[in-house]
Amino acid sequence: MKPFRAQIESIVDNALAEDLGGGDVTTEALIPPTLQGKASIIAKASGVLAGIEVMRIVFQRVDSSLQVNLLIPDGAKLKPGEMVATIEGNIASILKGERVALNFLQRLSGIASETARYVEAISGSAARILDTRKTIPGLRPLEKYAVRMGGGQNHRYNLSDGILIKDNHLAVLRSQGLSLKDIVLRARQSAPHEMKIEVEVSTVAEALEAVDAGADIIMLDNMSLEEMRSAVDKVEGHALIEASGGITLENVKPIAQTGVDFISIGALTHSVKALDINLELE
Amino acid sequence: MKPFRAQIESIVDNALAEDLGGGDVTTEALIPPTLQGKASIIAKASGVLAGIEVMRIVFQRVDSSLQVNLLIPDGAKLKPGEMVATIEGNIASILKGERVALNFLQRLSGIASETARYVEAISGSAARILDTRKTIPGLRPLEKYAVRMGGGQNHRYNLSDGILIKDNHLAVLRSQGLSLKDIVLRARQSAPHEMKIEVEVSTVAEALEAVDAGADIIMLDNMSLEEMRSAVDKVEGHALIEASGGITLENVKPIAQTGVDFISIGALTHSVKALDINLELE
Amino acid sequence: MKPFRAQIESIVDNALAEDLGGGDVTTEALIPPTLQGKASIIAKASGVLAGIEVMRIVFQRVDSSLQVNLLIPDGAKLKPGEMVATIEGNIASILKGERVALNFLQRLSGIASETARYVEAISGSAARILDTRKTIPGLRPLEKYAVRMGGGQNHRYNLSDGILIKDNHLAVLRSQGLSLKDIVLRARQSAPHEMKIEVEVSTVAEALEAVDAGADIIMLDNMSLEEMRSAVDKVEGHALIEASGGITLENVKPIAQTGVDFISIGALTHSVKALDINLELE
Amino acid sequence: MKPFRAQIESIVDNALAEDLGGGDVTTEALIPPTLQGKASIIAKASGVLAGIEVMRIVFQRVDSSLQVNLLIPDGAKLKPGEMVATIEGNIASILKGERVALNFLQRLSGIASETARYVEAISGSAARILDTRKTIPGLRPLEKYAVRMGGGQNHRYNLSDGILIKDNHLAVLRSQGLSLKDIVLRARQSAPHEMKIEVEVSTVAEALEAVDAGADIIMLDNMSLEEMRSAVDKVEGHALIEASGGITLENVKPIAQTGVDFISIGALTHSVKALDINLELE
Amino acid sequence: MKPFRAQIESIVDNALAEDLGGGDVTTEALIPPTLQGKASIIAKASGVLAGIEVMRIVFQRVDSSLQVNLLIPDGAKLKPGEMVATIEGNIASILKGERVALNFLQRLSGIASETARYVEAISGSAARILDTRKTIPGLRPLEKYAVRMGGGQNHRYNLSDGILIKDNHLAVLRSQGLSLKDIVLRARQSAPHEMKIEVEVSTVAEALEAVDAGADIIMLDNMSLEEMRSAVDKVEGHALIEASGGITLENVKPIAQTGVDFISIGALTHSVKALDINLELE
Amino acid sequence: MKPFRAQIESIVDNALAEDLGGGDVTTEALIPPTLQGKASIIAKASGVLAGIEVMRIVFQRVDSSLQVNLLIPDGAKLKPGEMVATIEGNIASILKGERVALNFLQRLSGIASETARYVEAISGSAARILDTRKTIPGLRPLEKYAVRMGGGQNHRYNLSDGILIKDNHLAVLRSQGLSLKDIVLRARQSAPHEMKIEVEVSTVAEALEAVDAGADIIMLDNMSLEEMRSAVDKVEGHALIEASGGITLENVKPIAQTGVDFISIGALTHSVKALDINLELE
Repeated sequence: MKPFRAQIESIVDNALAEDLGGGDVTTEALIPPTLQGKASIIAKASGVLAGIEVMRIVFQRVDSSLQVNLLIPDGAKLKPGEMVATIEGNIASILKGERVALNFLQRLSGIASETARYVEAISGSAARILDTRKTIPGLRPLEKYAVRMGGGQNHRYNLSDGILIKDNHLAVLRSQGLSLKDIVLRARQSAPHEMKIEVEVSTVAEALEAVDAGADIIMLDNMSLEEMRSAVDKVEGHALIEASGGITLENVKPIAQTGVDFISIGALTHSVKALDINLELE
Repeated sequence: MKPFRAQIESIVDNALAEDLGGGDVTTEALIPPTLQGKASIIAKASGVLAGIEVMRIVFQRVDSSLQVNLLIPDGAKLKPGEMVATIEGNIASILKGERVALNFLQRLSGIASETARYVEAISGSAARILDTRKTIPGLRPLEKYAVRMGGGQNHRYNLSDGILIKDNHLAVLRSQGLSLKDIVLRARQSAPHEMKIEVEVSTVAEALEAVDAGADIIMLDNMSLEEMRSAVDKVEGHALIEASGGITLENVKPIAQTGVDFISIGALTHSVKALDINLELE
Repeated sequence: MKPFRAQIESIVDNALAEDLGGGDVTTEALIPPTLQGKASIIAKASGVLAGIEVMRIVFQRVDSSLQVNLLIPDGAKLKPGEMVATIEGNIASILKGERVALNFLQRLSGIASETARYVEAISGSAARILDTRKTIPGLRPLEKYAVRMGGGQNHRYNLSDGILIKDNHLAVLRSQGLSLKDIVLRARQSAPHEMKIEVEVSTVAEALEAVDAGADIIMLDNMSLEEMRSAVDKVEGHALIEASGGITLENVKPIAQTGVDFISIGALTHSVKALDINLELE
Repeated sequence: MKPFRAQIESIVDNALAEDLGGGDVTTEALIPPTLQGKASIIAKASGVLAGIEVMRIVFQRVDSSLQVNLLIPDGAKLKPGEMVATIEGNIASILKGERVALNFLQRLSGIASETARYVEAISGSAARILDTRKTIPGLRPLEKYAVRMGGGQNHRYNLSDGILIKDNHLAVLRSQGLSLKDIVLRARQSAPHEMKIEVEVSTVAEALEAVDAGADIIMLDNMSLEEMRSAVDKVEGHALIEASGGITLENVKPIAQTGVDFISIGALTHSVKALDINLELE
Repeated sequence: MKPFRAQIESIVDNALAEDLGGGDVTTEALIPPTLQGKASIIAKASGVLAGIEVMRIVFQRVDSSLQVNLLIPDGAKLKPGEMVATIEGNIASILKGERVALNFLQRLSGIASETARYVEAISGSAARILDTRKTIPGLRPLEKYAVRMGGGQNHRYNLSDGILIKDNHLAVLRSQGLSLKDIVLRARQSAPHEMKIEVEVSTVAEALEAVDAGADIIMLDNMSLEEMRSAVDKVEGHALIEASGGITLENVKPIAQTGVDFISIGALTHSVKALDINLELE
Repeated sequence: MKPFRAQIESIVDNALAEDLGGGDVTTEALIPPTLQGKASIIAKASGVLAGIEVMRIVFQRVDSSLQVNLLIPDGAKLKPGEMVATIEGNIASILKGERVALNFLQRLSGIASETARYVEAISGSAARILDTRKTIPGLRPLEKYAVRMGGGQNHRYNLSDGILIKDNHLAVLRSQGLSLKDIVLRARQSAPHEMKIEVEVSTVAEALEAVDAGADIIMLDNMSLEEMRSAVDKVEGHALIEASGGITLENVKPIAQTGVDFISIGALTHSVKALDINLELE
């Protein structure tokens, strides 16, 4: 899901206000205000690019006369030393936008790169890598976009566009005397008709109970490989299956091989290493 | 520097709008709207707490009738299983705020915890751990606060409150025929009088040239331990010295032992692992 | 889906800014600023109440010292002359909030009332009344809420929380050489896995083709009663069926009796008569 | 009074945020992102056009590269099948903006069309059709504009630009022992000198009392035709006269023929039928 | 016209964001965060108080636990040394809000005090002192309020609530071949019926021409005392008369004595001396 | 420190919303909507120009088709009658933007002009004229810019970019038993390392105590010329010295001659006379 331009501009303006405050005292003290020049955006590490359009908007909001030339599209693999874009025009403006532009680009490319590592780790399997709602507050539209650039698929965007009955919902409702089956049926009756119903379960028995009650998707929470395989077997395709919890680059491949349809990973967005990307003035 | 309440509320409202969209379809389909209950916020890993007040504001913005009791203050060390806070009141409201509250709490505590690891690694030295401007766009006031909760110190907040002459400034000005000395002198003349002047250098010779020209602080960029020691020796206290670039938990101690005054680390905010913290309904 | 308070407050503040501009010149010229009193909100026509909490927020944003007592909950049936709420406190403040409060209450109750008329018209059938995205720009969270208060059910909230392949999507893709089947399959592959796929069709043959291709919901666009009956028969429960287009209070009952699952009606929000509700000072 | 562009853009951005949320999942799943094409905006019913510029802004905020060609100006009469505008460019962008654009265009044209029906109904008389402050919260600048496009005239924009002493003001002040005359005199003394004073009355006697006290405009509230004629006769042109309350397309002509100067109609904006206008892809 | 609370809060939050940026580094470095205390707001010069409620809101937005006690109401005369309010609670919070609170209070009281000097200068005459639209961008609701606190009366709030035909309108329309009479008649026909029509004139002849054409108010622009007296005589009460342009404390009394109804003074808001008011910690 | 464009646009949009409200009733009633023309911005008094770019943005936000030609740059000296800029295009748009454009231009040029008078008064001395944080809430970025255009230098932008220990900080800390020396040392330890430490003192003895404790800048508050001279002598260049309090155009020259480095003047922004600048239609 691609954020639309006004949405990005609002996020960018907010970031610039935060970083520029009353102005860039260093640049204004030192750099002649009419000096022209050219900068390059250079990858310093391997990874997958995401956020190049956001970076362009940053520079254009700082100074609409800057010429930003994008050389590589989002989703492309980067090698160290590769030139990603050039910016030409007022040097002081380029310096004022540098940090904010890189903060976006490094984080979003960090997300895309980490996602791509998971996607590659399970290549050959039919499973898909999903993100979660564990995104940085305020950046969700951009972070979900970065996951897609890395080859991942988005789980629901927010609480209003998907039924996901989680452990805490179940705990509350069971304490009211409802069975898992009752709960799924209630969801079926009350929830928007156009939405599938996903249920988080922690045992194979619960998985089957949820499927019997009509759940469309079963989220297996922190199960062992053994249990996941058993769940896949016994559900027999009557529901989609999503593995969740404790996924790492080390265990993701065997998990994919259990036959689950989806693997969702909070760390794609909540624990990301920025991708090293620099701005260099020529 | 502590964000003031209206600033936090604005960040929180934005995050809630992002996650709640048109509403929480699952909770509204399942949970009786008047059901009351109690939830606990529980640490699942060791670390340092930050963001507990932000978490409180999240729940209060979702539903001002929720009672949020904070049990542990920001800056405290957490052990796995420790209860951080309780929330009492409308269950549906608690469930609607859960994810956003945890997204803040996990990220900010992640930053505080990582900062604390660096601070501890150099304990015994006189050096101080600094953050940078490499923060997530839109969260800077909170992220800089989290660094302090972890025992770190804040570098300048943004471009308007500190003179830092970086490599790109130097590159531009040198291509105009200015020497490092010329540049520092120009800064001295043009910059706000109440600000110190910091200069990024990459050799010991440059460090001395900058000090001679009147720089107040020298940032040693990606120098070897050897070079750092030499710079500290030769500057002889005529300027503060900050080490920067390529700092890790492995090399931070020997760097501190070179005698530098400050060590600044972008990864404190740009490459953070969320601290595992959960919400559990009783 | 229930809007959360900060969302309503923002809509309310915007409406108050619009109506108060630089102040209420009449009230300030005439009414003693400390005069206290009491007003009643009185229904002047039969209908279903919606927006009572929004009304309360309007008065509290004008003057937080006003006491607003709600006597009837949203969703209740109103008779002419029935008292809905009372407001006590500063008379000038009550007069300043009157028009904005009533504008919300009359529109939302108008939507709830019209929805209730449709719901009642099909009582006895298993069909459900749905709204659409044809809401007034800026008021969607409130208008969708009002539909529910009238006994209706919400269709998708916005473009990001439901797959609905409409006539214009089909036109574009067919002109690219894709069949209806191809299109549904592409949606199946590319769309978020947690979403059902709904397809708009205009013939029974298309309905069956869409179901065969795996569509979860079929929207019958402007079909005759005869065709709808045929579609319901032939789909045989393999997909949910939604009737859409040209629905009126006159034809909704026979449509419901065709056996469709849902009937969606744009006029619930795009062509609404305000419910007559007044504010009277005692 | 014409809203200025930044005002419209803000309303439009808000509406797009509401409808696009995290993105358009259907379009993004199905439509090739670089596909180009052309759409037409077509009237499906007779009426008066309003909002064509707002529609243009919607598409430009979604994607500034879209070419929007307006073929018919606001205020023009539409026949079913008439082409109002064309949009050329990225098909996905057109589809993303479609609903919001039509929501504005259908509502504003609905208002203009209803206004035009009233204006036509009284053609030949000297009376003017006025709107009220009973507009949809947040859309007042656009709705008041639409009334003018339909040939109506705007009553005061908001509480700060006109003195209108209404029943509730009178009730409060009479309970304080003031006569209608006292009240008008107080308004004369305290109100901004550049504003006329309008008073709502419910009998001919009150009308005359208000005129004697110096009211500039008399609003006759829910009077019979007989009473209105009498009021017009006896006021003898010493004040402007506005008829208000219970106006319908059936009774508006005889009301106009009583000789009142203005007829104000809340239903122009509070109870409007959307004008049927479509977007069709070629 | 009194700004409503949400409007003031928005202005205040903006001002606090501007002044606090990333935080108050001095206070946070020095003042123990839990230290409690009390501050007094003290007038240092004679004048008229305005903005005391805004000041209260500033402190409450910084820290809602601060106790602000207002001792003197807006509109009261201040003597040097008089205590205006006290603030009790967290010292750090008081120090953070000090400057913004005083900036509002000093400016608004400066406006009220200057207005009061003009009002006093013409005491005994029937003329009223008016402000203009020459206010500081963003502060109009507060500045117009301050004028009233000083005993002045507000001219129109903005371009949408009063017809004022100024020199530039006249220049354009005369170059189109229209006479002053034509112009006033056109205004009469096209303008909102509830508004009076004011015309700026520069000679007595024009004043009479405007009155004959039906203008309700005549603005005499930069006329001599002689001319003003003549205009008052000849208009004979058929229109209100406003003197404007070049008014000073020296010439305002004789101007009032010419018999004009109003004297409008841009300097009340565009050229104001702040009133000296301090915050002192006990 | 130069505000960036998005910042100015936000301030400008706010000002236009304030002044245009629901529209410009006079212009819309009188001026043909397609009429084209040309206006000139003319200085009516001597002074220094500031805000010409803001003025341009005002007109472009009202109507992006207006052609604004700037003839004189900010910082230039103006003579009465000098033409500053021309605006060509839609006359109605020019009239709608006139007042807001002039409100900005007159205030900012008033600040620049007053600053220039102080700068000129001390020409020949080495002292610099500084502003303060006593700016109009919401306009600080523009007002600080105007001070620079007048030849002044900016003191800290806000509370987050400079350590300034003021009388109230000292009062609180002394009441806690700390000496001036203790206080400066605490600031040294706790404050951001890149900031200089400025201390307000009221006697020469305090000035020396602060310098001994390591203060970088000493603010002499309301001292006599004699005392200032003594302080300059005794500090012997170990700290920068700023004179503050009670500065006027009469006493600024002797103050500069005492040898202080800086003279800060609140009145540059809190008590400014607007510079007379007009818009004239050709």
